[in-house]
Amino acid sequence: MAQRPRTLDEIDTPAVLIDVDRAGANIKRVQDLADRVGFKLRPHIKTHKLPHFAQLQMAAGAVGITCQKIGEAEVMADAGLTDIFLPYNILGAPKLARLAALHRRITLSVTADSAVTVDGLAEAFGDSGHPLPVLVECDTGLGRCGVQQPSDALVLAQRIDKAGGLSFGGLMTFPADGRSAEAGAWLSEARDLMKAEGLAVARISSGGTPNLRYAGGHAPATEYRPGSYIYLDRYQVSVGAGGLDDCALTVLATVVSRPTATRAILDAGSKALSSDTMGLSEFGELPGIPGALVARLSEEHGIVTLPEGTTLPIGARVRVLPDHACVVSNLFDHVHLISGDRVVDILPVAARGRLG
Amino acid sequence: MAQRPRTLDEIDTPAVLIDVDRAGANIKRVQDLADRVGFKLRPHIKTHKLPHFAQLQMAAGAVGITCQKIGEAEVMADAGLTDIFLPYNILGAPKLARLAALHRRITLSVTADSAVTVDGLAEAFGDSGHPLPVLVECDTGLGRCGVQQPSDALVLAQRIDKAGGLSFGGLMTFPADGRSAEAGAWLSEARDLMKAEGLAVARISSGGTPNLRYAGGHAPATEYRPGSYIYLDRYQVSVGAGGLDDCALTVLATVVSRPTATRAILDAGSKALSSDTMGLSEFGELPGIPGALVARLSEEHGIVTLPEGTTLPIGARVRVLPDHACVVSNLFDHVHLISGDRVVDILPVAARGRLG
Repeated sequence: MAQRPRTLDEIDTPAVLIDVDRAGANIKRVQDLADRVGFKLRPHIKTHKLPHFAQLQMAAGAVGITCQKIGEAEVMADAGLTDIFLPYNILGAPKLARLAALHRRITLSVTADSAVTVDGLAEAFGDSGHPLPVLVECDTGLGRCGVQQPSDALVLAQRIDKAGGLSFGGLMTFPADGRSAEAGAWLSEARDLMKAEGLAVARISSGGTPNLRYAGGHAPATEYRPGSYIYLDRYQVSVGAGGLDDCALTVLATVVSRPTATRAILDAGSKALSSDTMGLSEFGELPGIPGALVARLSEEHGIVTLPEGTTLPIGARVRVLPDHACVVSNLFDHVHLISGDRVVDILPVAARGRLG
Repeated sequence: MAQRPRTLDEIDTPAVLIDVDRAGANIKRVQDLADRVGFKLRPHIKTHKLPHFAQLQMAAGAVGITCQKIGEAEVMADAGLTDIFLPYNILGAPKLARLAALHRRITLSVTADSAVTVDGLAEAFGDSGHPLPVLVECDTGLGRCGVQQPSDALVLAQRIDKAGGLSFGGLMTFPADGRSAEAGAWLSEARDLMKAEGLAVARISSGGTPNLRYAGGHAPATEYRPGSYIYLDRYQVSVGAGGLDDCALTVLATVVSRPTATRAILDAGSKALSSDTMGLSEFGELPGIPGALVARLSEEHGIVTLPEGTTLPIGARVRVLPDHACVVSNLFDHVHLISGDRVVDILPVAARGRLG
């Protein structure tokens, strides 16, 4: 490997840049919101996949972290994180054995949305003297996982409550975009059904950075697990979760071709930016160059459309704001932490590619 | 790590499966086509990113391999591959130094589409007693890199021919879908312009598995660099490049939730299947389950729509045929080589994530 770069100019492309000042400000802004409104913050590490930022989020006041797969939780536990929520249906002997091993060394909680998942957990944890908290996952409109009705949530909560080795931990949802009010009503109904049956609902966990705006409003959530807020991205800006100047992750790229007056080709394609547009019409934009949009991607080329007359020579280095920061973190083995033009550190993306 | 799986049943999910019998048949079928029609085959390794399959492609009769980034070429050279085409504009001192180092140990050729790229190569290779072949990249309709007109190709070829340390290596294009005839006319015109000026066009390189059907027809290409043909995928089947039973790459996944009668959730999301649909309407299909389509993805969940009445219980293991195999190879650290239900090997994806 070449000598470690000290400034932006010395970084070879493509590379992920994380502006630590912006990331730090984003951590503080959302923790301040949580403290002011009175909800617990349990950041999702899928956005950064770095123990470094998980530790900063904890130091700022988070009650724990959220991971989506056991492999991510193992990396974070190895790095010293001690309270991890895994909102996923864990199934099958190999994963249940890994889950039990994690449970012996950290404070762990998981979710379930079916009797099959609950029964598998009960079998794996039945002999444990130390019950595993299991939250019921609720489909409040997203159409992904989750029980379909509040009454189903009650039935599953009772099954968890009665199972050896498990404890009923509460309710969890990921609200559909713009349907936070419906999600709140759903969760309130489920909670009230449970209370009427004498079941305490210790936690109600909600997710999604855009949903933070509703915190303390109609949502009965006691805990949020946003991920994207630390970096933000073009999608988050499009839904008002922050401004362009709050975005902490960009991809540094080089212009490798200028075939026409309105087309520039970057050395960052779908392998660097991903094809995930989150529903936007382009794959990214170049904040430093007005009107420059990443119109198409192939694996190793980003095709940028430029307004007529834009000066952008071959060899120029540009920063691309991607539509979805989380998926970019998963595509690079390392990220460069920067402050202004200075490289302050280069970190391996420790939880990258942890799929199981 | 757990004991190495011997059969499909023992592989934890999600995992990439490569059917070696199908991959071998695909290698043979396309090499046979090349031998019959009389073009040279230089497979693109971006699809598999594995020295193992590059070596099998060479053993079958390929004249060399194609890599898209220097990092990929370095991995392949380290593994013993000795003739590599890098159809990319290589710019900047760090990459030019790596290119020169590669050129000293293997047979290398590259492309350029601008005077800036040619002049940079000439400066880096000027002192070499061993000229680097540079092909001119031509935009024959794709709208990515490449000179725009055959007359521009001539001017750039002359610049390469006169530059110290370089030799003019021929023409290269990636034809737009369905525009092979136009691409052929474009290349023929450029070749004839060069011949008239006394410039020999040693190679004409074309790409794309779907374009192989035109080989020997209107295309003047002497060499093809298809990638996808070794694995094929849902997109390649949609354009007639092979049948479902020829597809060698699938993603093994587990059903983790059955929220409704027509919805199943897999533990393989965009981190496993990628968001790249190649223009198809879904993200994949389940060949073993008629009518089952991957309708939506989030990072760790695949949302499958099922026909009413489909039996697919929680915990079931399914194989997903993705839309685009190449990008799936980039998302996994390892792939499982299988023959029938037997695991014959587990290989690290050696050239994964080589972005620069």
